[in-house]
Amino acid sequence: MLGREIYFQRREVLKKKLGKGVVILPGNNESPRNYKDNCYSFDQDSTFLYYFGMDIPSLVGVIDIDNNKEYIFGTDFTLDDIVWMGEQKLLKSYAEEAGVENFIEMSEFEKFAAQLKADKREVLLIPQYKADNVMKLSKALGLDPFKYDEHTSLDLIKAIIEQRNVKSQLEIDELEKAVNITKEMHLTAMKTVKAGMKEYEVVAAIEAVAKKYYGSTSFFTIFTKNGHILHNHGYDNTVEDGDMIVLDCGAKSREGYCGDMTTAFPVNGKYSDKQKDMYSLLIEMFEKAEEMVRPGINYKDVHLAVAKVLTEGMIKRGLMKGNADEAVKAGAHAVFFPHGLGHMLGLDVHDMENLGEDLVGYESFPRDMQFGLKSLRLARVLKEGYVFTIEPGIYFIPELVKRWKAAGKFMEYLNYEKIEEYFGFGGMRYEGDFVITADGARRLGDKMPKYYNEIEEIMKK
Amino acid sequence: MLGREIYFQRREVLKKKLGKGVVILPGNNESPRNYKDNCYSFDQDSTFLYYFGMDIPSLVGVIDIDNNKEYIFGTDFTLDDIVWMGEQKLLKSYAEEAGVENFIEMSEFEKFAAQLKADKREVLLIPQYKADNVMKLSKALGLDPFKYDEHTSLDLIKAIIEQRNVKSQLEIDELEKAVNITKEMHLTAMKTVKAGMKEYEVVAAIEAVAKKYYGSTSFFTIFTKNGHILHNHGYDNTVEDGDMIVLDCGAKSREGYCGDMTTAFPVNGKYSDKQKDMYSLLIEMFEKAEEMVRPGINYKDVHLAVAKVLTEGMIKRGLMKGNADEAVKAGAHAVFFPHGLGHMLGLDVHDMENLGEDLVGYESFPRDMQFGLKSLRLARVLKEGYVFTIEPGIYFIPELVKRWKAAGKFMEYLNYEKIEEYFGFGGMRYEGDFVITADGARRLGDKMPKYYNEIEEIMKK
Repeated sequence: MLGREIYFQRREVLKKKLGKGVVILPGNNESPRNYKDNCYSFDQDSTFLYYFGMDIPSLVGVIDIDNNKEYIFGTDFTLDDIVWMGEQKLLKSYAEEAGVENFIEMSEFEKFAAQLKADKREVLLIPQYKADNVMKLSKALGLDPFKYDEHTSLDLIKAIIEQRNVKSQLEIDELEKAVNITKEMHLTAMKTVKAGMKEYEVVAAIEAVAKKYYGSTSFFTIFTKNGHILHNHGYDNTVEDGDMIVLDCGAKSREGYCGDMTTAFPVNGKYSDKQKDMYSLLIEMFEKAEEMVRPGINYKDVHLAVAKVLTEGMIKRGLMKGNADEAVKAGAHAVFFPHGLGHMLGLDVHDMENLGEDLVGYESFPRDMQFGLKSLRLARVLKEGYVFTIEPGIYFIPELVKRWKAAGKFMEYLNYEKIEEYFGFGGMRYEGDFVITADGARRLGDKMPKYYNEIEEIMKK
Repeated sequence: MLGREIYFQRREVLKKKLGKGVVILPGNNESPRNYKDNCYSFDQDSTFLYYFGMDIPSLVGVIDIDNNKEYIFGTDFTLDDIVWMGEQKLLKSYAEEAGVENFIEMSEFEKFAAQLKADKREVLLIPQYKADNVMKLSKALGLDPFKYDEHTSLDLIKAIIEQRNVKSQLEIDELEKAVNITKEMHLTAMKTVKAGMKEYEVVAAIEAVAKKYYGSTSFFTIFTKNGHILHNHGYDNTVEDGDMIVLDCGAKSREGYCGDMTTAFPVNGKYSDKQKDMYSLLIEMFEKAEEMVRPGINYKDVHLAVAKVLTEGMIKRGLMKGNADEAVKAGAHAVFFPHGLGHMLGLDVHDMENLGEDLVGYESFPRDMQFGLKSLRLARVLKEGYVFTIEPGIYFIPELVKRWKAAGKFMEYLNYEKIEEYFGFGGMRYEGDFVITADGARRLGDKMPKYYNEIEEIMKK
């Protein structure tokens, strides 16, 4: 835990923003795999963790703003538990460490909630992504669980997002730890992979890195020789000489903060000329973003500027044609780069995605539904303390190219014959994690290899 | 998948046993970690997997016995998905591979269920351990989700248990694969551990073994220098010279079958005299069980015979006194061995625990609530094809000993002063996986080290 004062202050900020009501924030329960007592590794809900700091299952936190009282509900350890679990710090003590005065047994929660209802108190809830918490809250508050979503508070959601979007120095330090473990995961992959291995063998080595720091992955590791398949959750291929790997993975630190980086490297440790060429364009895109990010710029403009670098590069290489600005405006480049440039990062890898992607990433205008832009998660004006990813990609997706060609789409910008020559090339993505500073931005973590010669150097060893 | 005929036959057996009704078996959905799209590694529900074989999220299987029709409900891939996911085998084809003729889009499931209700059909359900499936079934069938459990069918549960408790040769072969990966996890731990390491560093190496076979762990790995703490889910200790490790872990094979083994070994690779002495008694207990298990014997009798070996050993060593049979009958030995001798093993590590522990493990008499025996999960007459664990343990649990001594418990059998000399010793457990054959039993997997000199030999390398 980060310290009593920190959680106390975080709740004070929230209380001031909201002014009134009773905020109920359930922590996560254990997630069963195949029966109740066989569970996945526990992940705390990030909002609960942010305000209460307790990385322990089956708690509920309550902030009664009207009466300036705070509560943790949980089932504390008994003497019987000590026989099976050894000496345990009591939940009550953890609650004190989070600066919460009132610890109450969970068996009282339904009574407590019923009283709130009886008193017609304004109860403030956030969306729930786990059905067990939907049922728990619905039962306690007398809601229809199938209509739980109708009872969430937009004011509460927005207040949490505004607060959590700006990271404190302490949070930035924690994120930096996660990024450095993430770096080690990538270097391990580069040093482990060799022709003839199964993808999952390399994944085993990558994920062991996160584990050996008592952390976990921050999301499902992508390690694939088919980088052009963006939603790829299998690891069953044998990697071969000539294959290009896309590795997108991250560590979650002990305190719950997330790293998220992507690299693209050849199985055999040497980029071919064709791979070097496209990789260089990818890094040009990345550096365009690196150069632009600072307080006051809208991230959508960064995304579009990166798209223009891509388009110009593709025109130079003969894969696109026409006017670059117009091609980007029309969205033709998205055939190579169909996703967004980045997203917020924090206690979640897509920070607060459970509260609503658009509420986190957008503020003054709605999401653009053009193919490519509709996948852009971050389109806010950047502010000091924002932590986010920059992750341009270049992919040759035969299914997409074929469909567009068949539909006669963007014939004025896309040189389909030339593009088809790249079928089988796969895809590449490069991703780093950044924080906005007072006058610019800084990449988090120790220096990470970026240019192909730097990566080749690592893979030699 | 294991082959169309296998799933078809399994369902035929179930249909014959039940004779009538409509069985609805939901598969598992993805389990979100911290938001809807950030999920844990997928684990299929074992009953769904057994009858339908599809290791894919968000399906529902239906066996309409009255009309001899079978259905899989799911949301099949679309052309749009192929852009993001590459070429996909359709769910419809998987359903065919499971011998199921009717694949229907999930969007039709609620209508289908409503029709069953309208027709007053007898719907047969099993208990659900995931709230999302409770809500899904309740919504479709018009049940109160808070009272879902009232609608499960004991006939269905019992029919499934009787069928799945007996493993086919094919299943035994699959279990053997999982056991052999489990063996490698143990040998890796023995070769990896050294004084000064954090427990979690060794766990990282152990779990990477399961992953590198495209498997996963079958349950939360126990790796601890505090073997006497039975419910121990942290790995935060530094292991030191002189510490005894208890490692209880298992691999889940690609087809979903589980291994589950425990070893106890010293961090420094050499058992001390005291450790050798207790370890030898532990293996005597294990071998007593090995010697007894065969068709026709009740596993409770094996448990009690093992308890007697323990008691005699403790009397010989001066930690217990009096008559061994009477001490076991009274339950005094349970101060050292407070858990059961084993459990069924299959597609779940505690096979079918979601259907009810007692229904799986007991048949002709109820569970004995004496301390120790109340934790015995298996007390059936063993039959050919049963696969189960043998896992005796010896622990010195200061909290338990102190409480019993203070209460004056079993003064006639326990030599408390002598027992107290073992405070700090920790605990030991040894576990192997067995199948009952026509005339005896066989330990699954390649030869596993059992005696302390065998383990010391491995740790030398």
